[in-house]
Amino acid sequence: MTERISSVDTLDVRFPTSRHRDGSDAMNPFPDYSAAYLVLRTTAGAEGHGLVFTVGRGTEIVVAALRSLAPMVLGRRVEELTADPGALARRLVGDSQIRWLGPEKGVVHMAAGGLVNAVWDLAARRAGKPLWQLLAGLSPEELVGQVDFRYLRDALTEDDALALLRTVAAGRSERERQLLAQGYPAYTTTPGWLGYDDEKLARLCREAVAAGYGLIKLKVGGNLADDVRRLGIARRAVGPGVRIAVDANQVWGVPDAIRWMRELAPFDPYWIEEPTSPDDVLGHAAIRRAVGPVRVATGEHTHNAVMFKQLLQAGAVDVVQIDACRVGGVNENLAILLLAARYGVPVCPHAGGVGLCELVQHLAMFDFVAVSGSSDDRAIEYVDHLHEHFVDPVRIRRGRYLAPTVPGMSAEIAAGSLAAYRFPDGPQWTDSVEEPAGATSGRSGP
Amino acid sequence: MTERISSVDTLDVRFPTSRHRDGSDAMNPFPDYSAAYLVLRTTAGAEGHGLVFTVGRGTEIVVAALRSLAPMVLGRRVEELTADPGALARRLVGDSQIRWLGPEKGVVHMAAGGLVNAVWDLAARRAGKPLWQLLAGLSPEELVGQVDFRYLRDALTEDDALALLRTVAAGRSERERQLLAQGYPAYTTTPGWLGYDDEKLARLCREAVAAGYGLIKLKVGGNLADDVRRLGIARRAVGPGVRIAVDANQVWGVPDAIRWMRELAPFDPYWIEEPTSPDDVLGHAAIRRAVGPVRVATGEHTHNAVMFKQLLQAGAVDVVQIDACRVGGVNENLAILLLAARYGVPVCPHAGGVGLCELVQHLAMFDFVAVSGSSDDRAIEYVDHLHEHFVDPVRIRRGRYLAPTVPGMSAEIAAGSLAAYRFPDGPQWTDSVEEPAGATSGRSGP
Repeated sequence: MTERISSVDTLDVRFPTSRHRDGSDAMNPFPDYSAAYLVLRTTAGAEGHGLVFTVGRGTEIVVAALRSLAPMVLGRRVEELTADPGALARRLVGDSQIRWLGPEKGVVHMAAGGLVNAVWDLAARRAGKPLWQLLAGLSPEELVGQVDFRYLRDALTEDDALALLRTVAAGRSERERQLLAQGYPAYTTTPGWLGYDDEKLARLCREAVAAGYGLIKLKVGGNLADDVRRLGIARRAVGPGVRIAVDANQVWGVPDAIRWMRELAPFDPYWIEEPTSPDDVLGHAAIRRAVGPVRVATGEHTHNAVMFKQLLQAGAVDVVQIDACRVGGVNENLAILLLAARYGVPVCPHAGGVGLCELVQHLAMFDFVAVSGSSDDRAIEYVDHLHEHFVDPVRIRRGRYLAPTVPGMSAEIAAGSLAAYRFPDGPQWTDSVEEPAGATSGRSGP
Repeated sequence: MTERISSVDTLDVRFPTSRHRDGSDAMNPFPDYSAAYLVLRTTAGAEGHGLVFTVGRGTEIVVAALRSLAPMVLGRRVEELTADPGALARRLVGDSQIRWLGPEKGVVHMAAGGLVNAVWDLAARRAGKPLWQLLAGLSPEELVGQVDFRYLRDALTEDDALALLRTVAAGRSERERQLLAQGYPAYTTTPGWLGYDDEKLARLCREAVAAGYGLIKLKVGGNLADDVRRLGIARRAVGPGVRIAVDANQVWGVPDAIRWMRELAPFDPYWIEEPTSPDDVLGHAAIRRAVGPVRVATGEHTHNAVMFKQLLQAGAVDVVQIDACRVGGVNENLAILLLAARYGVPVCPHAGGVGLCELVQHLAMFDFVAVSGSSDDRAIEYVDHLHEHFVDPVRIRRGRYLAPTVPGMSAEIAAGSLAAYRFPDGPQWTDSVEEPAGATSGRSGP
């Protein structure tokens, strides 16, 4: 009996992280970390889990998009789907009617990515491997076959990608051993949320260093005088040897970003993240020219590989911040990792929210083993939020992510949590207006 | 009694234009021209109509987004809303949770645009003027107040915009008279759909010239030999004095586009439209450098003003093709018109589909009267499709759009058509598998 996809279940899951909003500011009110969640089930009883991270309102729109795309997966042969998720990615992104709503951006693209990721989760479970290891076991030819090069060839051809993957293929086993033994570098955003008082900021900075982090991140962009004071406190707390990145969450136009960063330069910020609109490739390039040696980082809102291509072509970024749930899934992130490697720019994934750490660690670790072949100047963002809801949560030791060993993409949320936080009818939304203990560690922006 | 918005009704309306698909090709299967339609109603019985053009599957996702955004309009004071639709546009686009699903792109942005346009329709009806005339009657200061400059100031500041609007303010009344007397230039895509046989292509080209059009457009990108032959036929049919634009609908990567256009150059194409991904600003710039003097045109899929800004900054386009339903409504299109005027690039709006001609004519005419002050090298696309469903359809005479005179934005679809084509339960979808006579004139791509 041929195994087929028998159902695609979707769910709107929201964690009421905005209830305790002490310390928020007007530019970044608190999100309700949420997910448009999906489970593929097969006729043989296997499962593939996926999620699209969202921040509250609008999750229902992504769920609607998942439901609209589900017929393109339903009834498909599992063997065929999992052997070539790239074919599914092309079908989802290329649908000639739904494509009008993108193309390759926003709600429909995020939903396509959720489905593609769920198929990879299913594929990795069937292979009995964590996703990073499944990907790292594919040949250069197989990996190249998973990428859509149509709009990328002026920067990266199939031959370029093959050559690049073959160059690092020799060291794969050694790096895999190294990864399993030592994990992968993390950085922490815990100390730096806007609204923490100075004492708490200083204490959290010192704690981060003591916990083994070599890079911390502070939110900026609310008020310049506050940012200057906070960055000074952080720099004094961590000393000159620890890197401090700053993150403006898109609040500035290009001239504002340049002016503001000149004031923060004395504190030696390592990178400025999202200084302006994520769509503004040329703006990022202008900012980078003006604020160097401070690095420019972006990517969590960069909606597809064509945009990453241009950020690299224009010399607009020093740090590529992939996100597991923004683009069209593992396949498009593979394209982005290849582009970054081609241009020699390090990838430091965006994470946090709910599930982003769990998912994106697989991509960074695969990058280390089989694409860039390096972890220098690279680190995955880490925020200590909501991991307790995951069946296979991330594990952090001494400022590093331990390599996952459970088969899959680590996307599965525990059934109890799904039931409790289902929106709008789960008991966490109907039974209480107070935030449940332990559901979140408090204030944050994505 | 204060007049307020009392309801926001939404509707999924689809015209089964894909049923007669003889002549389609694999790259551009036929769309079902559709709309996520909305009606604002006020406590005083007034209405504002809006629509987001779509091409079939996925319309339900845009409807879901409209419903999610509707609470931001419901209950609002009509006087306040219509006096400053820009404030609503900022609220819709800036919602800190829904923004995660863009920002300013895809489904949520198109839905925001639909709501903003419906408010402008309501405002124009209340003012007793067609929208173009309402806009053309606003002062330079009022117009500038309707634009969000946050991400635009490296290319266009408030002062730049004011100066520009003041320069052309003197000639407004003369141009308004001219517009009412002579209309605004149109171009036609009717002859050029892929799949027409050579005889029909030649005949339609001759007919277009006879009907007064000075610019026609042909679809290309299916097969190079076919394109060379078809373009030759068209050129011989219209003679050297009529402009022939070609449209690739995004099928090429950058190197393909350059190679292909070199083969078509002998037939003197006026512009190449959508040669590659709409997101590829640098790709368009590279193509433009390579294919000149052939012009590069794009915009129907350009998702926001930040992208248009970059197309202009990078010297990537000769022709800006605004679309009434892609970006965040009239306000963002005002920003785009100002950017184009600032860079001296003509605007030739994208239209066709269902309702796009009706809506966008107001923006082009307003541009002529109050922004660029010129109609040189400008024309609005015209396709003779589905206009019969509109309460105030466009009127074409001798290759020109006549200026609308009915108050509003011409977005209203007749109640009978809404009922008949409602998806999936309208009689046109439930009673017949055959396309009804008169519902469409046949094959087309958007």
